[in-house]
Amino acid sequence: MEHSYVSRATIGRIPLYLRYLKNNYHGTENISATSLARALGLGEVQVRKDLSAVSGAGRPKTGYNIGELTKALEEFLGGKSNVVILGAGKLGRALLDYSGFGDYGLNIIAAFDISVGEVQHSNSGKPIFPADMLESICAESNAKIGIITVPAVAAQEVCDRLVGCGIKGIWCFAPSHLTVPDDVEVQYENMALSLAYLNKKI
Amino acid sequence: MEHSYVSRATIGRIPLYLRYLKNNYHGTENISATSLARALGLGEVQVRKDLSAVSGAGRPKTGYNIGELTKALEEFLGGKSNVVILGAGKLGRALLDYSGFGDYGLNIIAAFDISVGEVQHSNSGKPIFPADMLESICAESNAKIGIITVPAVAAQEVCDRLVGCGIKGIWCFAPSHLTVPDDVEVQYENMALSLAYLNKKI
Repeated sequence: MEHSYVSRATIGRIPLYLRYLKNNYHGTENISATSLARALGLGEVQVRKDLSAVSGAGRPKTGYNIGELTKALEEFLGGKSNVVILGAGKLGRALLDYSGFGDYGLNIIAAFDISVGEVQHSNSGKPIFPADMLESICAESNAKIGIITVPAVAAQEVCDRLVGCGIKGIWCFAPSHLTVPDDVEVQYENMALSLAYLNKKI
Repeated sequence: MEHSYVSRATIGRIPLYLRYLKNNYHGTENISATSLARALGLGEVQVRKDLSAVSGAGRPKTGYNIGELTKALEEFLGGKSNVVILGAGKLGRALLDYSGFGDYGLNIIAAFDISVGEVQHSNSGKPIFPADMLESICAESNAKIGIITVPAVAAQEVCDRLVGCGIKGIWCFAPSHLTVPDDVEVQYENMALSLAYLNKKI
């Protein structure tokens, strides 16, 4: 099913629904928006709205088939994607070991850094490869997303290499503007700006 | 001057204007929106809009007095604020050493961690204190913003202590919902959600 615009707030609740359904059901039963709302402590109107954005309306009286709903929720999150991190400084390593991505079907497979001579491992056991292994690991793993946490001067070069590896989405923490082909999506993260925004509000 | 709603994009450009003015002028001259736009490679209409949101309209022909404009831009960013970080794991340390906050008048003064027994120093030389020194350092520095990078289970407790220290803005990286008094502003950062959003777009 094609999805029109969906808010970040809705996307943020999808993992709640998924986790609850997977932990409590086995796929053949039905569940109503009302019971789901009650179990998760959410408003019923909100749950109905979220689920209809993802999966269409539930059937009157019977509600949603749990197997179908779980599948729709998973597909909605964009399916599973493998992700690589370019730049294994403190931020790169923090993202490499962050455990919250899995809930959204995102699998951070490795980081790469030019200062690394031999494969290292992070605290959680994920590999940190020398930068020249990027192409082979991306080809092997079919990675679709790259996170750039290198200094600004190196960002465009790293970005070009990611695009050459078939990466379609780039999440850029470097304070630079990247040039990419039309079929590649870039999302910029400006930490200082987020904090400045908070500072303005207090 | 009171500011009505201003976009993140405008706030993001303020440091560009400030840096350019401080590096190139000495405060008594005037500058036009046209020259500022040309120098920074920005659209003239955009620069005019940004400056009028911050500082009112420039005078016809003479433009903006540079001293007044610089002061208005600085005030607009909310003035200088001291910031403390709670939780000196990889993310906390990455934020502690990130140099981009200064452009927005934000001064990260220290991090705190319960696992630290004696004062340590980060790569850039900033102090990491034992958690029980939070109250005294906050009082001394008059910190107004706290960044929470502790695990979710500890987030509310840390938040309560920050509120007790007179902190008015909290930037929370822990996946928790915080309860705070009405005069405290909380901004949540969900890294996994940002990446999920990118994944949906590709």
